[in-house]
Amino acid sequence: MSEESNKNGDSIAQATTLLAGRHVTLYSRNGWEFVSRNTHRPAVGIVAITDDERIVLVEQYRPPVGRRVVELPAGLAGDIAGHEGETLLLAAQRELLEETGYAASRWTELGVGYSSPGLTDESIVLFLAEGLQRVEAGGGDGTESITIHEPSLANVAEWLATHGVAVDLKLWAGLFAAQEVRRARVG
Amino acid sequence: MSEESNKNGDSIAQATTLLAGRHVTLYSRNGWEFVSRNTHRPAVGIVAITDDERIVLVEQYRPPVGRRVVELPAGLAGDIAGHEGETLLLAAQRELLEETGYAASRWTELGVGYSSPGLTDESIVLFLAEGLQRVEAGGGDGTESITIHEPSLANVAEWLATHGVAVDLKLWAGLFAAQEVRRARVG
Repeated sequence: MSEESNKNGDSIAQATTLLAGRHVTLYSRNGWEFVSRNTHRPAVGIVAITDDERIVLVEQYRPPVGRRVVELPAGLAGDIAGHEGETLLLAAQRELLEETGYAASRWTELGVGYSSPGLTDESIVLFLAEGLQRVEAGGGDGTESITIHEPSLANVAEWLATHGVAVDLKLWAGLFAAQEVRRARVG
Repeated sequence: MSEESNKNGDSIAQATTLLAGRHVTLYSRNGWEFVSRNTHRPAVGIVAITDDERIVLVEQYRPPVGRRVVELPAGLAGDIAGHEGETLLLAAQRELLEETGYAASRWTELGVGYSSPGLTDESIVLFLAEGLQRVEAGGGDGTESITIHEPSLANVAEWLATHGVAVDLKLWAGLFAAQEVRRARVG
């Protein structure tokens, strides 16, 4: 089995392709099966907070789970033809505008992490977006049917519990990261 | 295309199997490709907090990302022959003990969410474990090589930033959920 290197320079076994789909590919490495997006770029997720301390969330139907899910505004960098090399910040700005109609004047990178590193190599870079101004209707790119919610940030956990729709855990992760960054500013 | 129903009773298109692996299966639903674990049970993740306010984390090599990742103690319910029907709480107790050597006297369910609902139907039930007592060495089930960390809960974000190892975003999600539940107790 041939070898490749990861970001740390460690030699790791090359992955074997089990099935290459149109959007994702199923691989095996040392007998461990996992899936990758064919874009091979990180996803971006945005914690967008209005001046009156509401968080902007999106709700949409997700085919893999067969139901509607509440999530951070999010998307893939480089998934539009002709913009494969867009920066992650530009991708985040584009996705926030497309999905929610908001532009933000202040952007802060919150960090990066894996969504499920035993199952996929998908990573997500989270951004905090503040100084929001609504410039479009939002609602997605035409193939998406997105409902926008703006619960109070202080009560978002309670709102999620009572709203009765499934949750993407990256939303909770973004809330933790945003809170840490905003707390550090005060302290 | 035949139809099935989700938990809300909505009629949803049945998924087509693209490739059934030993551990995971690649499906397509309305042209949307996604992966499922063959156990078809949720995963469990544990926010384990010691009496002196440290959080118990695990670090291990993850083949899908080709590097070591810091995570919550976690695992799959029903992935051991003869225990396919174990409850999620029992699975959480088993995984905490196997991976960290800790038993906990107080267990609280924090909630459930999807890890990446555009890519997989994997869901994770998060538990808070308190009243910890070390009863074994931990370190995994023999196939796992796990390093245990116990940073201070108050400084865990800073610890993660300086530790220099990749992070599973479910860790941040668990920190948010645990904080909300513990705050509600006080208030």
